[in-house]
Amino acid sequence: MLNLPEQKVALGTVRNIIRDTFEYGKRRSLEIGAENVFDFSLGNPSVPAPNCVNDKIKAILESNESTSIHQYTSAPGDLKNLETLAASLNRRFGGGIRPSDLYFTVGAAASLTCTFHGLTVKGDEYVVLAPFFIEYKVFIEGAGGKVVVTPPNFENFQPDFTAIEAAINENTKGVIINSPNNPSGVVYSEETIKQLAALLKKKSEEYAHPIFLIADEPYRELVFDGYTVPWVPNYYDNTIVCYSYSKSLSIPGERIGYILVPPTVCEHDKVYASICGAGRQLGFVNAPSLFQRIAAECDGETSDISVYQHNAELMYNSLTKMGFTCIRPGGTFYLLMKAPMESALEFCLKAREFELLLVPTDAFMCEGFVRIAYCVPTERIERALPAFEKLAKSCL
Amino acid sequence: MLNLPEQKVALGTVRNIIRDTFEYGKRRSLEIGAENVFDFSLGNPSVPAPNCVNDKIKAILESNESTSIHQYTSAPGDLKNLETLAASLNRRFGGGIRPSDLYFTVGAAASLTCTFHGLTVKGDEYVVLAPFFIEYKVFIEGAGGKVVVTPPNFENFQPDFTAIEAAINENTKGVIINSPNNPSGVVYSEETIKQLAALLKKKSEEYAHPIFLIADEPYRELVFDGYTVPWVPNYYDNTIVCYSYSKSLSIPGERIGYILVPPTVCEHDKVYASICGAGRQLGFVNAPSLFQRIAAECDGETSDISVYQHNAELMYNSLTKMGFTCIRPGGTFYLLMKAPMESALEFCLKAREFELLLVPTDAFMCEGFVRIAYCVPTERIERALPAFEKLAKSCL
Repeated sequence: MLNLPEQKVALGTVRNIIRDTFEYGKRRSLEIGAENVFDFSLGNPSVPAPNCVNDKIKAILESNESTSIHQYTSAPGDLKNLETLAASLNRRFGGGIRPSDLYFTVGAAASLTCTFHGLTVKGDEYVVLAPFFIEYKVFIEGAGGKVVVTPPNFENFQPDFTAIEAAINENTKGVIINSPNNPSGVVYSEETIKQLAALLKKKSEEYAHPIFLIADEPYRELVFDGYTVPWVPNYYDNTIVCYSYSKSLSIPGERIGYILVPPTVCEHDKVYASICGAGRQLGFVNAPSLFQRIAAECDGETSDISVYQHNAELMYNSLTKMGFTCIRPGGTFYLLMKAPMESALEFCLKAREFELLLVPTDAFMCEGFVRIAYCVPTERIERALPAFEKLAKSCL
Repeated sequence: MLNLPEQKVALGTVRNIIRDTFEYGKRRSLEIGAENVFDFSLGNPSVPAPNCVNDKIKAILESNESTSIHQYTSAPGDLKNLETLAASLNRRFGGGIRPSDLYFTVGAAASLTCTFHGLTVKGDEYVVLAPFFIEYKVFIEGAGGKVVVTPPNFENFQPDFTAIEAAINENTKGVIINSPNNPSGVVYSEETIKQLAALLKKKSEEYAHPIFLIADEPYRELVFDGYTVPWVPNYYDNTIVCYSYSKSLSIPGERIGYILVPPTVCEHDKVYASICGAGRQLGFVNAPSLFQRIAAECDGETSDISVYQHNAELMYNSLTKMGFTCIRPGGTFYLLMKAPMESALEFCLKAREFELLLVPTDAFMCEGFVRIAYCVPTERIERALPAFEKLAKSCL
């Protein structure tokens, strides 16, 4: 008889509801034509990578020896790339970051797994703020940690501090935030970050050990006029930044990101070493060498996010005018709409009758809303509006 | 007080002896000039990638939309890439491989960690054959397995079957082989694979559960005239092939490889799902999209390995003529030389007196030999021969 780790078999077998909706859309497109299916299920960047990406790839291939382009780098990254990235972050966010604080990763998921595996000892808990990217649970439990979920403030999808405070205990190793937020589109205000920092400082003192603030920031640059994303390390010493270039540079398939362990983190060198050790044990030898260099040299550039902002406004204004209750996004390419019936899942099935493919926030451990991913051509939104109109008439 | 997983801190802090030797070489080069240091420590391909790699990158960038090049693929890989790879493997090795048997990874290390995490339940043991890539131990223990080491036949560095048979018990989940072998350069003969297959079949029956044969094959194509590498799935049903393009295409930094779960593997779909689930939990969303395509389309091509073959012959013939005992390599870019004193480590320190940087096989859980990595310009070997001559005179 063959014994396999059943949890991993399940993880490799069961598709999440987002993927399921997307696959439904592909089947439905074959039936009625892709132009008649309004798929808002996936967070796949619709805007091309900025020119710097492909231009730099070509330039690097033209002017370097093959063995120097494609060779192993040291585990945290090639020193020159780390220096370039540190300089860029210091220019953008105000200094103090050293190359030895940075560790290139194979994207956001790897940034998170290396961090969780690097920090977690038996018994550790992590507080996560719903709605959240469901893989947090997979990654934290895979590292041997326990997930403690807190609900949002449902008025504005900022954190519920009473709930967070109640969730923290002597076993809390960290709190994960994701701002701009998937799936809500909400940007945490400076006030929110300050309040969170004060709470974590108080609780760290109370329990006599640091509580890390893990800032998962793949949407950092996808922020709209009138909003700013606070640089979390400026507000809280024990912050670890997990970053990915997937959304900012529209290169989600290339898997490139980084972890920043700022100099202010307690026992910095040990924390950094443990994250490196986790990366080694998980099988991340070094982040892909060509894209390490692209990422470092393009850091701070973005694809044309005005498209997302335009889509956000069009979607928000149209849907609220129809009578839906929506959360105004400050960034990302997502928007939350309140389900006008008890079950968001049922509402999504109702929407399918009008060929609208939406994702219930149940997929993000939060009930009652649907996520609309508007990283799509604007004309798809324009053509979908009559369908939303019909959906409104049938539900509201 | 901060509690960290001390094992990971150690993994992220302690450099192995190979890296240590390499770093010594860099320091020494600054002191006496790089041309006077004969560094044979690192297994970093010295031959450029075949033209297909950079040509295809440019062609893909020229003729595709940015969003289609750099987008997410499904977790095991883009279906077209999986089909291309399956067709190539079927052409080369004789058929039966389906796209759904393949899973693109971020290189050999990831191929191994996804496999070990996908297979291992509490209590599982893996038999490894010394000398072996020391990270096997890191990866297996990270997946919760136990490592059982067996020595080689020291005459020819083929496996010691008596030792392997004695090491297998009811807890054995798998046996890992690496042929062509790092560090010995030895290619396992067809006879060896047949004998191993027969042993594992007998033991699987005896313990009433499958024992997997994990074939770690990054050096598969680096094989010299007169040697052939048997295609292991043709000899043993429960083989899992872990591959990397690092050495064959000279792109170690790009981190691209695959896992093959052949159709003959017992409970195939469950084993495959568990490996996918492990990949998901470890944070490998999908292997880098651009290099997935490069790998699939260049599968079977190699960089100019005649350079390695020439270096192997030059090194082997010169050293044996000087009186050293060497193991004749059938492939890779490594060669083992017997240390003519009790401690291989001491012999390496002695070699340093002549500016020769060698690595003791202690680093591969095997005593008494040194590894010479001849993936270097041939002229470095030519210039190093007088130093080896002096070393021989001082030791033999």
